[in-house]
Amino acid sequence: MYEWRNIIKSIILAGGSGTRLWPLSREKYPKQFLKLNEKSLFQDTVSRCLEISDINEIYVVTNESQKFFVIGQIEELGYEIPKENILLEPVAKNTLPAITYGMHLIKKRFGNDFVGIFSSDHILDKSAMQTIKNAEALASEYLLTFGIVPTSPHTGYGYIKPADPIGMAFKVLEFKEKPDIYDAKKYIKEGFLWNSGMFLFETTVFFEELEKYAPDISTAFRNYETIEEIYEKIPYISIDYGIIEKSSKVAVIKLAERWSDLGNFSALYNEFDKDENNNVIHNCEEEIINSYGNLIHSKTGKIVSLIDVNDMIVVDTMDALLICPKSSSQKVKDVASSLKDKNDERAQLHQTAYRPWGSYTILENSEGHKIKNIVVLPQKKLSLQLHHHRSEHWVVVKGMARVQVDEEQYFLRQGESTFIRAGIKHRLTNPGKVPLEIIEVQLGDYVEEDDIVRFDDDYGRE
Amino acid sequence: MYEWRNIIKSIILAGGSGTRLWPLSREKYPKQFLKLNEKSLFQDTVSRCLEISDINEIYVVTNESQKFFVIGQIEELGYEIPKENILLEPVAKNTLPAITYGMHLIKKRFGNDFVGIFSSDHILDKSAMQTIKNAEALASEYLLTFGIVPTSPHTGYGYIKPADPIGMAFKVLEFKEKPDIYDAKKYIKEGFLWNSGMFLFETTVFFEELEKYAPDISTAFRNYETIEEIYEKIPYISIDYGIIEKSSKVAVIKLAERWSDLGNFSALYNEFDKDENNNVIHNCEEEIINSYGNLIHSKTGKIVSLIDVNDMIVVDTMDALLICPKSSSQKVKDVASSLKDKNDERAQLHQTAYRPWGSYTILENSEGHKIKNIVVLPQKKLSLQLHHHRSEHWVVVKGMARVQVDEEQYFLRQGESTFIRAGIKHRLTNPGKVPLEIIEVQLGDYVEEDDIVRFDDDYGRE
Repeated sequence: MYEWRNIIKSIILAGGSGTRLWPLSREKYPKQFLKLNEKSLFQDTVSRCLEISDINEIYVVTNESQKFFVIGQIEELGYEIPKENILLEPVAKNTLPAITYGMHLIKKRFGNDFVGIFSSDHILDKSAMQTIKNAEALASEYLLTFGIVPTSPHTGYGYIKPADPIGMAFKVLEFKEKPDIYDAKKYIKEGFLWNSGMFLFETTVFFEELEKYAPDISTAFRNYETIEEIYEKIPYISIDYGIIEKSSKVAVIKLAERWSDLGNFSALYNEFDKDENNNVIHNCEEEIINSYGNLIHSKTGKIVSLIDVNDMIVVDTMDALLICPKSSSQKVKDVASSLKDKNDERAQLHQTAYRPWGSYTILENSEGHKIKNIVVLPQKKLSLQLHHHRSEHWVVVKGMARVQVDEEQYFLRQGESTFIRAGIKHRLTNPGKVPLEIIEVQLGDYVEEDDIVRFDDDYGRE
Repeated sequence: MYEWRNIIKSIILAGGSGTRLWPLSREKYPKQFLKLNEKSLFQDTVSRCLEISDINEIYVVTNESQKFFVIGQIEELGYEIPKENILLEPVAKNTLPAITYGMHLIKKRFGNDFVGIFSSDHILDKSAMQTIKNAEALASEYLLTFGIVPTSPHTGYGYIKPADPIGMAFKVLEFKEKPDIYDAKKYIKEGFLWNSGMFLFETTVFFEELEKYAPDISTAFRNYETIEEIYEKIPYISIDYGIIEKSSKVAVIKLAERWSDLGNFSALYNEFDKDENNNVIHNCEEEIINSYGNLIHSKTGKIVSLIDVNDMIVVDTMDALLICPKSSSQKVKDVASSLKDKNDERAQLHQTAYRPWGSYTILENSEGHKIKNIVVLPQKKLSLQLHHHRSEHWVVVKGMARVQVDEEQYFLRQGESTFIRAGIKHRLTNPGKVPLEIIEVQLGDYVEEDDIVRFDDDYGRE
């Protein structure tokens, strides 16, 4: 369709854990997979990459616990990504190892090639992809980074100072860490750009520079077979520290498009449509009196009432409520890490958990019983399993279920129910064309998720 | 025990509907019955009245929908109030009709008598009851009202200006409506008292003055038989407007005790214990950073996180979230009335509804199904009933249930379940000694509370 298709490959970095948008995002449900709009930021990123790469040329670096988001959300876009293009990091070691993992695989498969590197949790206008594509010729000589023309003296971004032009790019005079507001204003006057964390590399140039500035990583990828071995040997390091700020071959290309890393709730507020009182209201009924400039996001179906409240963030989920001024958005990650330090599972997961076969939401969790609303996607099935400590009652509230209990199989229609005794093998399948919804009442002396023995599983979890 | 026992009777006004502490209180669950501490304000009021009256001498004016709170909460105190002492107003007509209803009944039964009148939703130190008791002698000549020695220039209370002393009381120079802060300060300098809304009356004096200043009410109570007829004839009017501010027989007695009408969340904040950051935190886990002077009340079991938030009210219930500065507490009633205007049932009720037999909490309410956690108190039973539009699945999670379905009776133990088809008569009983807890899954094209036909009911609702 376009002559330049099939020329540039894409690596999407989708392994980040989410703490800065807690309690919307969780460690195991990071912001790139949140459906803040109809599509997630990850899905938007995939759509952008499809402007320069075929789906078979897109590589996603992520981890085991987020693999199902990656597959599922690409499926929702109507595409199927080859399984071998999903690269699972055994442990997060920042951007340089993740990018090298993708570059290494592409080089092994295809030899020399051009590769765009994209974060999965940024907002970017699609038109930027044309510029990135046009930069290809320069990538044979330079490690190309992309700098956004700033629209404000933002203190949450790194800055790049461009120097002499080289074709459509510029040499880089210096990189600056996140500045204070005074320096940020100075940078803007002096023509600095925001460091976007997007790159365009040729494999050959990349590995030459990697060998020069991070030989330990280069060596590990050459000498070890499994990704587990490699990741054991290499340091935790960003591509900026590791290569970009050191290499003399770096050039920057200006992008004038709308871009944001949505790094906190204040950035989220800025990106969304406001009502006539400058409030951003997501997902909830509200009863608001004399309140302006707030971000209100509720996932609980409850009514939210604000009176005389201005410039606040209010995020209400089933298990957590966050309230802070927009100007304190950057402190939200402190709450998430405090919870993590206490081993509080609300740092990691929501009441709603996503599974390869669908999702479940915990409606009530008390001593001796737990009640879940379970949604099974059409044609999907849960593993064949048993629980030692709990029995389960299932009532079908929507769709049709095929139930296997021991060797017996039967169907349940809307309004029908069944009972599964502790210690009995069972399996739930949605044989239909519409989502199956059941209410599960678990009863037993122990009703935690880890009381499960899996015998057969479509998703390799047995 | 005390020589003065059995001399003074008490009327407790407990018919108010709660909007000023929404969403904690609701129209059908007003603040006097909330368990803000271990005891409700109503229970505290009953305990105070027991200082001057036997339980048989306490009269409670309330309405049908709150009758079960009155009986239940007095039972919890270990007392049984005679059923004929609970007076049900067919419609709320403010304090003068309610007080006259009680006074009328006492006069009819006992002739002349002394009666203390008490709101059920105020905080008051018990020691005040001694003063009230001591005032009895004066009540043969005066309508006695009680004025609180002010501790601040409160703009939410009415004020009374005392004049010359008459024994332990004072003549009243004038009554003042809720003032602005300027006038409030002036009143305090001039020795005004807060109008507490408590009274001590002799029936004879009360009815003489009623005849003089509100003859329509006096006449209605004399001439009509049923309370419904009487309430149809009489106006909506407070005792202050109707009698107290007009009668020349009014005297005020000073009380120096701690008193508050808990008229809004700010008052609630003032009355409760603060932590080291001056936060009042009720019922919830919190993760609070740099936040001071807040009232946080959550009934949802979730974690509440505040960052850099000061002097705010945060009230989180299953179906509503309220956020406002303490200084805007008085606007909360506007939200409740706005909801009421929209016929939103969250103005009236909680997700948890209290019934004579126990309570239920709605866990999920979706199109076509509703899930409830139902608690049946020991030895209590629901009505014999049927639903046209919904079937019900019951799973016992605690205790034992006796189930009647059509003519059949059987028992369900913990972990057992049953299914009740639409159109079938059924009844649920707790035959045991501990509360019975069941999960009910309702399924049908219509799952609202009004799809119920009652055949037999312990509580006269058939």
